[in-house]
Amino acid sequence: MSHARDGYANAGVDYGVIDPGKLLAQRTAAETASELAARGASELVESRGESAYVVDLGDRYLATVTEALGTKNLVADAVGPALGRSFYDAIAHDTVATIVNDLVTVGARPLCLTAYWGAGSSEWFADERRMADLARGWGAACKEARCAWGGGETQVLKGMIAPSTVVLGGSAVGMIAKKGELLLGSRVAAGDRILIAPAVGIHTNGLTLARKIAEFLPEGYSTSVPGDPRGRGFGEALLDPTPLYGRLVEALHDEGVELHYAVHVTGHGWRKLMRSNLELSYIVETMPAVPPVLAQLVEVAGLGAEEAYGTFNMGAGFALFVPASLAARAVEIGQRHGFPLLDAGRVETGPRRVVLEPLGLIYEGTTLAIR
Amino acid sequence: MSHARDGYANAGVDYGVIDPGKLLAQRTAAETASELAARGASELVESRGESAYVVDLGDRYLATVTEALGTKNLVADAVGPALGRSFYDAIAHDTVATIVNDLVTVGARPLCLTAYWGAGSSEWFADERRMADLARGWGAACKEARCAWGGGETQVLKGMIAPSTVVLGGSAVGMIAKKGELLLGSRVAAGDRILIAPAVGIHTNGLTLARKIAEFLPEGYSTSVPGDPRGRGFGEALLDPTPLYGRLVEALHDEGVELHYAVHVTGHGWRKLMRSNLELSYIVETMPAVPPVLAQLVEVAGLGAEEAYGTFNMGAGFALFVPASLAARAVEIGQRHGFPLLDAGRVETGPRRVVLEPLGLIYEGTTLAIR
Repeated sequence: MSHARDGYANAGVDYGVIDPGKLLAQRTAAETASELAARGASELVESRGESAYVVDLGDRYLATVTEALGTKNLVADAVGPALGRSFYDAIAHDTVATIVNDLVTVGARPLCLTAYWGAGSSEWFADERRMADLARGWGAACKEARCAWGGGETQVLKGMIAPSTVVLGGSAVGMIAKKGELLLGSRVAAGDRILIAPAVGIHTNGLTLARKIAEFLPEGYSTSVPGDPRGRGFGEALLDPTPLYGRLVEALHDEGVELHYAVHVTGHGWRKLMRSNLELSYIVETMPAVPPVLAQLVEVAGLGAEEAYGTFNMGAGFALFVPASLAARAVEIGQRHGFPLLDAGRVETGPRRVVLEPLGLIYEGTTLAIR
Repeated sequence: MSHARDGYANAGVDYGVIDPGKLLAQRTAAETASELAARGASELVESRGESAYVVDLGDRYLATVTEALGTKNLVADAVGPALGRSFYDAIAHDTVATIVNDLVTVGARPLCLTAYWGAGSSEWFADERRMADLARGWGAACKEARCAWGGGETQVLKGMIAPSTVVLGGSAVGMIAKKGELLLGSRVAAGDRILIAPAVGIHTNGLTLARKIAEFLPEGYSTSVPGDPRGRGFGEALLDPTPLYGRLVEALHDEGVELHYAVHVTGHGWRKLMRSNLELSYIVETMPAVPPVLAQLVEVAGLGAEEAYGTFNMGAGFALFVPASLAARAVEIGQRHGFPLLDAGRVETGPRRVVLEPLGLIYEGTTLAIR
């Protein structure tokens, strides 16, 4: 199952080339863990395969993550002028979301976040409306995530970053004060239910391919999205901001629901459901609705279901793994907090794989090697 | 005194254009501090003007910072091939140093660090020797800083970052377990001595100008540096890795020396000595030796002393502010731990300014507005 990889390689991002260096970095990073002893701390070795790094401080866990947006802001740059908006409020929200949604997968409650904004020219920072949108969108997203924005680094990298653009990223720190709220892949168990929080659009993964597809649409980014309730164009619909799922995790923890694990569905699409190392099968019985912009994207790109669901979120933004006895209660709590959860499937003993029953698709464990 | 600004504007980095958006971001960020209450924490408002953001967890302080290298790796790219080295071990060390040296200025002991590596092409990560140097240099620097490397984000941003280059940065988290070890500008006091830890070269600031100057040298980056003990060229000498000053701060704290404040001398050069908001004068009586590569740089650039010392470190890597009664002991401890400290001057009541007595130079408070 290498369709998704091929699709990405065609769009200029070749994961096959990236991997060896990444692996060397991971091994070298693992060797530094012993330094924590000098601080009276230790690492959760297992967290190295998770979306956030977790340190045991003794009385609580600390989690941290550095993430970056990718190329989504190029879409804002392309569609904003015609629509009279910068869209950097949404772009800021998405950057914060890509950081914080990773952090909360380990059960951490966000504490503070620091920003990285690297532009290719001083002029980039001189557009007052865009900067106001960026700053306000960033602040609003941090507040929604219940996270203090502790400043960050703003720099100009002439000759390294294209003059008209900006690289957006940052880092967040969170705490797991009640150690039982730690979520790890090893906690997933046969019998768990898979609850899916819906995605609203493409979120922050797959934008390289989406930008390429825009070139093939009859009116480019302005091409109407079939089924979009507001009749918007492809570009504008791509820019719908990613939900912040941390409040969902918090609400469930606050009401005493014992979660086992959480997955932020990003690159690798639904294959991410088998992020845990365990030999378990993930049987999806019911699928969420596909956001119209993704339906259009995969149709125009000519992607089959296997490639589409193995690459894009296709409607699944975030997944929770909970004991079956708690599933109904979790759904009710989610509903009350503005997160409609779909009780989508079950975890079974069996080979590590994801089975999408309604589509007759199986992703074997070998198609997801991210640890 | 706007010489230094003008010098930078000529090299393509215009701080005058950057500032308004930065200020808006700072104000918006400050408004998010109230979110910490939900975590049983609060911010140290004062830390917003410091090099790291500090959160009060009740029983201890947490500090965090996001930083990035800038354009120094372009020098490695330019001089490496002719010398048969990638120099990305030194580049990695410098990226870690630019992050961690900021973190330790508030007295934090580094706990863990996460990396951001954003390249312009998948091929960038395919150069095995360069990747090995980058990974090993990064790991070694983290170990030297007594900091666990907790992974990070590696991405390809085609069309945003130049295909042949990489943007390097990251974030670190540290702890101040003994609250008395917190260092802030407000703790500087008249009567303090200013101890200076030497710089070994340009470190990580002023590289845009240095790269421009290389174009004016007779043999470019290969031009010999007068006074360089190994007869090296300008480019190679620029790549000398920045010292990690955290061990110095730790050693002094471990031996019970009450520090008041610390400053990482980066952009704005010696003007950084007045980073504190207080109305105090910093009288420098003795200056450290100027690293040969900086002496060459400022001579070729035609910079006067005012501009040179207001822009580059000119031999001062890190400054500590300590009660006069402890200065001799601090110097002795530094010596023992491999950090020769120069007892360089004194803090006095008076207008906020830096006086470099040996050079007859005064930088007024208005020339440093970084809070």
